[in-house]
Amino acid sequence: MAETVTALRSLMSSHSPPLHALIVPSEDYHQSEYVSARDKRRAFVSGFTGSAGLALITMNEALLWTDARYFLQAAQQLSDEWKLMRMGEDPSVDIWMTDNLPKDAAIGADTWCVSVDTAQKWERAFAKKQQKLVQTTRNLVDEVWTNRPPAETNPVTVHPLQFAGRSVADKLKELRKNLVQEKARAMIVTALDEVAWLYNVRGSDVSYCPVVHAFAIVTIDSAFLYVDKQKLSPETNSYMEENGIMVRNYGDVSSDAVLLASNQLISSSSTKGFEENPKIDVGNATSTGNSSSHAVEFVNELIWVDPGACCFALYSKLSVDKVLLQQSPLALPKALKNHVEIEGLKKAHIRDGAAVVQYLVWLDKQMQELYGASGYFMEAESTKEKKQLGTRRLTEVSVSDKLEEFRASKEHFRGLSFRTTSSVGSNAAIIHYKPEAETCAELDPDCIYLFDSGAQYLDGTTDITRTVHFGKPTPHEKSSNTAVLKGHISLGNARFPNGINGHALDALARIPLWKYGLDYKHGTGHGIGSYLNVHEGPHQISLRPSARDLPLQVSMAVTDEPGYYEDGNFGIRIENVLIVKEGNTKFNFGDKGYLSFEHITWAPYQRKLIDVSVLVPEEVEWLNEYHAKCREILAPYLNTSEMEWLKKATEPIAA
Amino acid sequence: MAETVTALRSLMSSHSPPLHALIVPSEDYHQSEYVSARDKRRAFVSGFTGSAGLALITMNEALLWTDARYFLQAAQQLSDEWKLMRMGEDPSVDIWMTDNLPKDAAIGADTWCVSVDTAQKWERAFAKKQQKLVQTTRNLVDEVWTNRPPAETNPVTVHPLQFAGRSVADKLKELRKNLVQEKARAMIVTALDEVAWLYNVRGSDVSYCPVVHAFAIVTIDSAFLYVDKQKLSPETNSYMEENGIMVRNYGDVSSDAVLLASNQLISSSSTKGFEENPKIDVGNATSTGNSSSHAVEFVNELIWVDPGACCFALYSKLSVDKVLLQQSPLALPKALKNHVEIEGLKKAHIRDGAAVVQYLVWLDKQMQELYGASGYFMEAESTKEKKQLGTRRLTEVSVSDKLEEFRASKEHFRGLSFRTTSSVGSNAAIIHYKPEAETCAELDPDCIYLFDSGAQYLDGTTDITRTVHFGKPTPHEKSSNTAVLKGHISLGNARFPNGINGHALDALARIPLWKYGLDYKHGTGHGIGSYLNVHEGPHQISLRPSARDLPLQVSMAVTDEPGYYEDGNFGIRIENVLIVKEGNTKFNFGDKGYLSFEHITWAPYQRKLIDVSVLVPEEVEWLNEYHAKCREILAPYLNTSEMEWLKKATEPIAA
Repeated sequence: MAETVTALRSLMSSHSPPLHALIVPSEDYHQSEYVSARDKRRAFVSGFTGSAGLALITMNEALLWTDARYFLQAAQQLSDEWKLMRMGEDPSVDIWMTDNLPKDAAIGADTWCVSVDTAQKWERAFAKKQQKLVQTTRNLVDEVWTNRPPAETNPVTVHPLQFAGRSVADKLKELRKNLVQEKARAMIVTALDEVAWLYNVRGSDVSYCPVVHAFAIVTIDSAFLYVDKQKLSPETNSYMEENGIMVRNYGDVSSDAVLLASNQLISSSSTKGFEENPKIDVGNATSTGNSSSHAVEFVNELIWVDPGACCFALYSKLSVDKVLLQQSPLALPKALKNHVEIEGLKKAHIRDGAAVVQYLVWLDKQMQELYGASGYFMEAESTKEKKQLGTRRLTEVSVSDKLEEFRASKEHFRGLSFRTTSSVGSNAAIIHYKPEAETCAELDPDCIYLFDSGAQYLDGTTDITRTVHFGKPTPHEKSSNTAVLKGHISLGNARFPNGINGHALDALARIPLWKYGLDYKHGTGHGIGSYLNVHEGPHQISLRPSARDLPLQVSMAVTDEPGYYEDGNFGIRIENVLIVKEGNTKFNFGDKGYLSFEHITWAPYQRKLIDVSVLVPEEVEWLNEYHAKCREILAPYLNTSEMEWLKKATEPIAA
Repeated sequence: MAETVTALRSLMSSHSPPLHALIVPSEDYHQSEYVSARDKRRAFVSGFTGSAGLALITMNEALLWTDARYFLQAAQQLSDEWKLMRMGEDPSVDIWMTDNLPKDAAIGADTWCVSVDTAQKWERAFAKKQQKLVQTTRNLVDEVWTNRPPAETNPVTVHPLQFAGRSVADKLKELRKNLVQEKARAMIVTALDEVAWLYNVRGSDVSYCPVVHAFAIVTIDSAFLYVDKQKLSPETNSYMEENGIMVRNYGDVSSDAVLLASNQLISSSSTKGFEENPKIDVGNATSTGNSSSHAVEFVNELIWVDPGACCFALYSKLSVDKVLLQQSPLALPKALKNHVEIEGLKKAHIRDGAAVVQYLVWLDKQMQELYGASGYFMEAESTKEKKQLGTRRLTEVSVSDKLEEFRASKEHFRGLSFRTTSSVGSNAAIIHYKPEAETCAELDPDCIYLFDSGAQYLDGTTDITRTVHFGKPTPHEKSSNTAVLKGHISLGNARFPNGINGHALDALARIPLWKYGLDYKHGTGHGIGSYLNVHEGPHQISLRPSARDLPLQVSMAVTDEPGYYEDGNFGIRIENVLIVKEGNTKFNFGDKGYLSFEHITWAPYQRKLIDVSVLVPEEVEWLNEYHAKCREILAPYLNTSEMEWLKKATEPIAA
């Protein structure tokens, strides 16, 4: 690590201009939350492997910023030459740079890895001391990263209509309508999941995310895909041609952006996609009489890029006064699942729920047999003698492998949707805990066990968390779990008018915890993709309003996952995926239309961890109904003994 | 009205430069929500008397913008020459101007009546067409308003420490600490309630608001009050001198702002207030060795003005690069009631609650005697014959006069805190309904009666709403009232951590209504002054986050007032004032400290309008406790028969 920093400083000195500092962000060229191995530059440079952070190297310092989720991990992973900067406590990176770097300093970064929003924020800060953000001539980290993993050559697959539910032509049509409305003549699509969604393709370039490293450019009459052409089979190439999508090399997006800016980007492919669009959509077009598509002169002259997802380097190829910097028009339609996607999501969650129940049945048996635990249903403390009956051990990793096995046996399984959190006791208090085979904990019948996991199925992406105990939970654990469950039910049962953002509902999930002075330091819900990223916007359920947040709308999917984490002790989280649907309210005040949620996740909540005495009748009724549906819905996927277990787990609770 | 517009157009033509349009805002020179009669220029020009709106006069059009609360009223009051622009439906005023007025247009306004925020927003919009906001040479409306009410000469009174609870010296000290922290050397205080609060003075220049038309300028070593000197008695003048406040003429604020900008504003008064400040507070001062206060050279060079409360005209006197545009540092300390203010508020609310109960007792008796109503306690429909037993009639205005009478009999009463909403049946559905003696409705035993009212007492400002029925409420009215009450209880019972803004809690008050597809089109809570404005920031409880909103904190006062309004039918609102206090939670997760609310309003909720079957045990328990406290707290203020009535009204409800 020390060598890396030294090598980087040497490159910084010989750079033209010489750099006072080098910023190494976590993001790839697409501003992804999760990046491929070869894009983990910040981890390579600093040694810190968490998902979020930023490294800054000056001539005599090396600093790493990360957020509260990772303070502990970063402190452990960073060597002495690195200084940990705690976000929310220490000065932010832009303030640090203006305060500590000299006037006129040249601050380098590969701005392919920096969003327009972020770069512009930095530039505003730098202006105070006439400092400059410098696009490095090449990525300096890549220069010193001798054993950098090679570029992926994973195939691009077509996501068939039976799962996607909407044709590319239809999606392009809607996008072009948006372009015309906003007086734009093209959009550069930069977010990986948006490219995959728009063209109905999938890949495996990033672990857990079935996306392809690719850009897209869509104009009023043409559509381009920028991708490593090796990844396309003849069939996929035909598919592209059929859909009027011109395939170009990944790196060509840069020069094509320049051509686009000067209105010289010309598609040589047939404009089949365009011809299918009714002319009426292109309201601002002025035909010159020449029927060739290039001769159509558009009054619309803007190029649309999403400032949160487009990198500054690509944006810089455009004429800044001809750019529409606005949230991508694909974010909302991608979030509004179509009927096929909703049916797929529901089916995927049923198979996934069956796998979770099978896992719990298996784990319950193991815990009793190997550790002498009283089990999922019985409440009794284990005795020292009872513990460790056999020589076989269950670890956080070995059991989560078993869970994956149950999932992998299900139809359409394609892998996990994120690295499983499988956590015993105090590990469960670490919100983003990811066990490592070598160091992880062993299962313990006297501790809470929390697992947060999900899978990618061709018909949908899943995400579920359950918290269980195979011995005797403490009254405090039971009381905390009940408060979390009450919040989970309260949010899930909410009805609310159209136009309400998730942040207005977040407190519903916290009120039962707040009552006792408890809380959790994460949001309550995120969108979820359709065989795409497990985290998806633009909506969310969080206390903090966000500028990118949009109101909840019918057919959005969102998680409902309150929790409670007691450092060094235990953690609790309960998570289902919900679909926003019509509220079917008795009245419709203000003619706004009212909404509600439908749970699509199916797995029991452990009765033993619930203090029924603090539930209100409505909560008991809901729990009993949910459990009854679990039985009914999962029955076809379970064998007799599994079903017997589930019947017991879902027995009605008396109010 | 037509003559007024014609006269204005003539002045617009002869203005230098000639004006393409004239903006007439609702606000006075202090951006007040409520303004004095002579400041109601927009009402004079347009005929529309609602509290919020903006008039725009061009050479051939006259337009009035207002919000949804006033669409009906504005449509009724505007003559044919005026066009009603519905906010939220029609284009906003700045967009309309840029779209409809010519390139390079000169758009006039008296920018003493326009906030910096608003003027800058307009200027940004105007820039697109090189249009210009022109400060008119004088207020053109005043020119044509021949019978404009004269300037008020109401006395300025000192608000004694026994009610204010904090000395002027102490408040100035805190303000100056804020100035130093923000590198400012002075603040221009423009909001009327902030001037009154800072100097512990009160007046009666604006109906219902005990404020004085005045500005203040506070520097590190001097304090100025700009006011009509006629309003100050010798005693008040002595008070000013004692507190080191230099009194200057109201109009001098303009030239003094210019002097302040060039650092030439010099106080000839003693700097007593300054001498009391420990030198340690003035950390950025560099003494020149001369002990005279003017010789102290401050590194701090900014002048602080609140862009929401300071008018653009005054701001324009300053050097824009030396202005700190930031929310006033007085907003928060004014909202954080001190112990004396809290005790005062509580006592004022007890006397006020007693008046409300006396009013209900009186009204109950009147309704039975004059209209043959079954009364507050009994549920029976009136019969045609039973109605109108006598010749005496009760009207919305006559009964609210009686309510005022009960209040006026209480200690420290100084008037009402806003014009009473006293509304029968469908009038109660008009949220801001203000009955007029000539046109108002008669009480009706078959209709809901809603009254929203409050008073100014020397020790506190009150605001309460109760909704009652003296006959047989419909099941729908009862069900709606119960949902409103459940929301009111849910919000009032909330515990939540420090750092939470009101908007995160707003949904708690709506969830029981949303369940049925019901809602209300107003916020749920506002701050309230201490013998000051009934509406006060910076906190609020509203679905919409606001940039000026601050987190709820211990010792803030806030209302809890959900409602439900059915056009043409009935309206419901239930309102108490709450004080934010420590939550006394069992745990303190995250060491943030948890908060809760304390109700300080005392008056029963009508049992007959509550469907007990949908209450949960916690709600029943809370209601019974609240009602028991009503009895106990109000007992000293009620006579035997009133107390008997209250006992009946507060009988415990069985769960």
